[in-house]
Amino acid sequence: MMYNVKVDVSLKEGMLNPEASTIERSLALLGYEVKETKTSETITFEMEDENENSAREKVDDMCQKLLCNPIIHNYEITIEEVDCKN
Amino acid sequence: MMYNVKVDVSLKEGMLNPEASTIERSLALLGYEVKETKTSETITFEMEDENENSAREKVDDMCQKLLCNPIIHNYEITIEEVDCKN
Repeated sequence: MMYNVKVDVSLKEGMLNPEASTIERSLALLGYEVKETKTSETITFEMEDENENSAREKVDDMCQKLLCNPIIHNYEITIEEVDCKN
Repeated sequence: MMYNVKVDVSLKEGMLNPEASTIERSLALLGYEVKETKTSETITFEMEDENENSAREKVDDMCQKLLCNPIIHNYEITIEEVDCKN
Protein backbone atom coordinates (compact mmCIF):
# COMPACT_ATOMS: atom_id res chain seq x y z
CA MET A 1 0.00 0.00 0.00
CA MET A 2 1.06 3.56 -0.70
CA TYR A 3 0.65 6.12 2.07
CA ASN A 4 0.66 9.90 2.25
CA VAL A 5 2.56 10.88 5.36
CA LYS A 6 2.49 14.26 7.06
CA VAL A 7 4.74 15.15 9.99
CA ASP A 8 4.12 18.39 11.91
CA VAL A 9 7.13 19.49 13.90
CA SER A 10 6.68 22.22 16.48
CA LEU A 11 8.68 23.49 19.42
CA LYS A 12 7.71 22.20 22.84
CA GLU A 13 5.79 24.48 25.16
CA GLY A 14 8.17 26.88 26.89
CA MET A 15 10.92 26.73 24.26
CA LEU A 16 12.00 30.12 22.95
CA ASN A 17 11.00 30.71 19.33
CA PRO A 18 13.04 33.65 18.00
CA GLU A 19 11.46 33.31 14.55
CA ALA A 20 7.97 33.76 15.97
CA SER A 21 9.06 36.69 18.14
CA THR A 22 10.65 38.38 15.14
CA ILE A 23 7.51 37.89 13.03
CA GLU A 24 5.35 39.34 15.81
CA ARG A 25 7.63 42.36 16.24
CA SER A 26 7.86 42.97 12.49
CA LEU A 27 4.09 42.75 12.05
CA ALA A 28 3.74 45.31 14.86
CA LEU A 29 6.08 47.65 12.94
CA LEU A 30 3.76 47.28 9.93
CA GLY A 31 0.83 48.20 12.16
CA TYR A 32 -0.61 44.75 12.75
CA GLU A 33 -1.13 43.66 16.33
CA VAL A 34 -1.08 39.92 16.69
CA LYS A 35 -0.29 37.68 19.65
CA GLU A 36 0.48 34.06 20.53
CA THR A 37 2.55 33.76 17.34
CA LYS A 38 3.89 30.26 16.77
CA THR A 39 5.68 28.61 13.90
CA SER A 40 5.90 24.97 12.92
CA GLU A 41 7.25 22.94 10.07
CA THR A 42 5.43 20.34 8.04
CA ILE A 43 7.17 17.56 6.13
CA THR A 44 5.11 15.48 3.72
CA PHE A 45 6.10 12.47 1.65
CA GLU A 46 4.83 9.24 0.17
CA MET A 47 5.95 5.82 1.28
CA GLU A 48 5.13 2.23 0.56
CA ASP A 49 4.35 -0.23 3.32
CA GLU A 50 2.29 -3.28 4.17
CA ASN A 51 -0.12 -1.56 6.51
CA GLU A 52 -0.72 1.69 8.33
CA ASN A 53 0.61 0.52 11.70
CA SER A 54 3.90 -0.56 10.24
CA ALA A 55 4.17 2.75 8.33
CA ARG A 56 3.45 4.71 11.50
CA GLU A 57 6.15 2.84 13.40
CA LYS A 58 8.69 3.62 10.68
CA VAL A 59 7.71 7.29 10.49
CA ASP A 60 8.00 7.54 14.27
CA ASP A 61 11.50 6.13 13.97
CA MET A 62 12.34 8.66 11.22
CA CYS A 63 11.14 11.44 13.53
CA GLN A 64 13.27 10.25 16.44
CA LYS A 65 16.35 9.77 14.28
CA LEU A 66 16.23 12.56 11.73
CA LEU A 67 13.14 14.71 11.31
CA CYS A 68 12.91 16.09 14.84
CA ASN A 69 14.96 16.76 17.89
CA PRO A 70 12.84 14.99 20.51
CA ILE A 71 14.41 17.11 23.27
CA ILE A 72 12.92 20.35 21.97
CA HIS A 73 10.27 19.30 19.45
CA ASN A 74 6.81 17.83 19.54
CA TYR A 75 5.72 15.99 16.45
CA GLU A 76 2.42 14.79 15.10
CA ILE A 77 2.15 12.10 12.45
CA THR A 78 -0.77 11.85 10.02
CA ILE A 79 -0.97 8.88 7.66
CA GLU A 80 -3.49 8.44 4.87
CA GLU A 81 -3.76 5.76 2.27
CA VAL A 82 -3.14 7.08 -1.24
CA ASP A 83 -6.35 6.72 -3.16
CA CYS A 84 -5.28 5.19 -6.47
CA LYS A 85 -6.42 2.29 -8.58
CA ASN A 86 -3.20 0.50 -9.49
CA MET B 1 -13.92 39.45 17.64
CA MET B 2 -10.83 37.38 18.30
CA TYR B 3 -9.59 35.13 15.52
CA ASN B 4 -7.18 32.21 15.30
CA VAL B 5 -5.19 32.64 12.12
CA LYS B 6 -3.13 29.97 10.39
CA VAL B 7 -0.92 30.69 7.38
CA ASP B 8 0.60 27.79 5.45
CA VAL B 9 3.58 28.83 3.36
CA SER B 10 4.90 26.41 0.75
CA LEU B 11 7.18 26.67 -2.26
CA LYS B 12 5.49 27.03 -5.64
CA GLU B 13 5.40 24.01 -7.92
CA GLY B 14 8.70 23.66 -9.74
CA MET B 15 10.81 25.54 -7.19
CA LEU B 16 13.83 23.63 -5.96
CA ASN B 17 13.56 22.59 -2.32
CA PRO B 18 17.04 21.63 -1.08
CA GLU B 19 15.73 20.94 2.42
CA ALA B 20 13.27 18.34 1.11
CA SER B 21 15.92 16.73 -1.12
CA THR B 22 18.30 16.49 1.82
CA ILE B 23 15.64 14.89 4.02
CA GLU B 24 14.83 12.37 1.31
CA ARG B 25 18.49 11.50 0.77
CA SER B 26 19.18 11.22 4.49
CA LEU B 27 16.14 8.99 5.04
CA ALA B 28 17.42 6.75 2.23
CA LEU B 29 20.77 6.47 4.05
CA LEU B 30 18.84 5.31 7.13
CA GLY B 31 17.10 2.71 4.99
CA TYR B 32 13.77 4.44 4.47
CA GLU B 33 12.59 4.92 0.92
CA VAL B 34 10.22 7.83 0.58
CA LYS B 35 9.33 10.03 -2.36
CA GLU B 36 7.59 13.30 -3.22
CA THR B 37 9.07 14.88 -0.11
CA LYS B 38 7.89 18.44 0.47
CA THR B 39 8.29 20.89 3.32
CA SER B 40 6.16 23.84 4.31
CA GLU B 41 5.99 26.30 7.14
CA THR B 42 3.00 27.16 9.26
CA ILE B 43 2.62 30.43 11.14
CA THR B 44 -0.22 30.72 13.64
CA PHE B 45 -1.32 33.71 15.71
CA GLU B 46 -4.31 35.40 17.26
CA MET B 47 -5.67 38.75 16.15
CA GLU B 48 -8.58 41.00 16.96
CA ASP B 49 -10.81 42.37 14.23
CA GLU B 50 -14.39 43.40 13.48
CA ASN B 51 -15.22 40.50 11.19
CA GLU B 52 -13.65 37.60 9.36
CA ASN B 53 -13.48 39.31 5.96
CA SER B 54 -11.59 42.26 7.33
CA ALA B 55 -9.23 39.92 9.20
CA ARG B 56 -8.63 37.89 6.04
CA GLU B 57 -7.78 41.05 4.08
CA LYS B 58 -5.25 42.08 6.70
CA VAL B 59 -3.65 38.65 6.88
CA ASP B 60 -3.39 38.58 3.10
CA ASP B 61 -1.59 41.90 3.29
CA MET B 62 0.76 40.52 5.99
CA CYS B 63 1.54 37.59 3.69
CA GLN B 64 2.33 39.84 0.75
CA LYS B 65 4.46 42.20 2.81
CA LEU B 66 6.22 40.00 5.32
CA LEU B 67 5.24 36.37 5.82
CA CYS B 68 5.84 35.11 2.28
CA ASN B 69 7.75 35.89 -0.84
CA PRO B 70 4.90 35.87 -3.39
CA ILE B 71 7.38 35.21 -6.21
CA ILE B 72 8.33 31.79 -4.90
CA HIS B 73 5.70 30.92 -2.28
CA ASN B 74 2.09 29.83 -2.27
CA TYR B 75 0.16 30.60 0.88
CA GLU B 76 -3.09 29.44 2.35
CA ILE B 77 -4.93 31.37 5.03
CA THR B 78 -7.26 29.72 7.55
CA ILE B 79 -9.23 31.90 9.95
CA GLU B 80 -11.38 30.67 12.82
CA GLU B 81 -13.21 32.58 15.46
CA VAL B 82 -11.80 32.01 18.93
CA ASP B 83 -14.42 30.25 20.98
CA CYS B 84 -14.48 32.15 24.26
CA LYS B 85 -17.14 33.74 26.41
CA ASN B 86 -15.72 37.18 27.19
